[in-house]
Amino acid sequence: MTEVSNSLPDVSEPAAAVVELLGMVAYAELLAFDRMAADARLAPDLRRRAVLSEMAAVEIVNFRRLATRLTEHGADADEAMTPYVAALQEYHELTEPKDWLEALTKAYVWDGIADDFFREVAAFLAPKDRDLVLEVLHDSQYNDFAAAEIRAAIAVDPKVANRLSMWARRLVGEGLTQAQRMAGEHIALTILIVEGSGDQAGVQALLKRLTAAHTARMAAVGLNN
Amino acid sequence: MTEVSNSLPDVSEPAAAVVELLGMVAYAELLAFDRMAADARLAPDLRRRAVLSEMAAVEIVNFRRLATRLTEHGADADEAMTPYVAALQEYHELTEPKDWLEALTKAYVWDGIADDFFREVAAFLAPKDRDLVLEVLHDSQYNDFAAAEIRAAIAVDPKVANRLSMWARRLVGEGLTQAQRMAGEHIALTILIVEGSGDQAGVQALLKRLTAAHTARMAAVGLNN
Repeated sequence: MTEVSNSLPDVSEPAAAVVELLGMVAYAELLAFDRMAADARLAPDLRRRAVLSEMAAVEIVNFRRLATRLTEHGADADEAMTPYVAALQEYHELTEPKDWLEALTKAYVWDGIADDFFREVAAFLAPKDRDLVLEVLHDSQYNDFAAAEIRAAIAVDPKVANRLSMWARRLVGEGLTQAQRMAGEHIALTILIVEGSGDQAGVQALLKRLTAAHTARMAAVGLNN
Repeated sequence: MTEVSNSLPDVSEPAAAVVELLGMVAYAELLAFDRMAADARLAPDLRRRAVLSEMAAVEIVNFRRLATRLTEHGADADEAMTPYVAALQEYHELTEPKDWLEALTKAYVWDGIADDFFREVAAFLAPKDRDLVLEVLHDSQYNDFAAAEIRAAIAVDPKVANRLSMWARRLVGEGLTQAQRMAGEHIALTILIVEGSGDQAGVQALLKRLTAAHTARMAAVGLNN
């Protein structure tokens, strides 16, 4: 159950893009918490369940830092997050993992791309906001855990690689659909990205970097793009 | 999915009761995290969802402290928690909240009784374990939040009190069934409680204190026992 806000940020205000970005990152953290907590239930044992639950808790600490920063910008954290609820919720509903490996692959794929994207956009921000966004990116501990689980599963049963590769492609496809929708709805942020990148070619280069990094991450765990 | 351990703690060892208790509290924390994270989805708005998610994260910090202490006792945290998985899972499956108010009432009722119980039993432990158990009890912030939400809902619609009172009675009934089952299965802990209480009359007095405190908590939010 979510509220739909009718109050769009004022794009003429210089801070509008920052609020849009911080709102997006904050909601992504809240959702990452929610998703990891749910995925923890799919864990095959209590040790893995505890590891994932602890990682989920870290997201909430990050969420609070972002919400506090939004308040410092004079924004309401809930209002800043609300525009992203529908698109991200739809993405997650369309890509509900069926088991532990699908859940980890989803986290691995999604967090990798999201972190790269946030890192790129953070570079266009003033130092205080930039540093905060860089600090709340997922630490490598989580990626390493997911990567090790995926690799181990493929080692046991190589057929798993095909299934998870197809799953990862579906995740990226659904993700791109929602990302395009969000870009159209969050004009201030889109302008920030276009201006930060220099021009249309700069945006293309940014997307190319995101794609290349994703392909490398897939290969690193034995999945095909 | 959970593992069932065949290795029962050695009741002749003095630390067995401590390990049984810490294992129970640790699993209760892991489950409280899980339940609060799931309940957060039922929240009527993003603010309340964030509040509950943040409270869930606190449980995980407590879980880690208990797991560390179990290791100091030479126990394996997973093994110590495993015997409680089935009973607590069954309780939660039998009492799945249908909405936000049922979820909060469940947390309010269950955490209140569990905290009182853990507080009573902690008194029978050596200082280091006793202090740890007392420190991981829920702080009043969470109870206050749940109580305020329940009171506010009853103020808006007094009929809510009847529905939630019935719900709370069902929670207590199911909880007692599982508690009896656990008492029969965790002999070292049961002996600790009987010996700590002095005799059978002491145990009766303990149960009476738990019941009285529960009744007072119900009345405090406008529910009937």
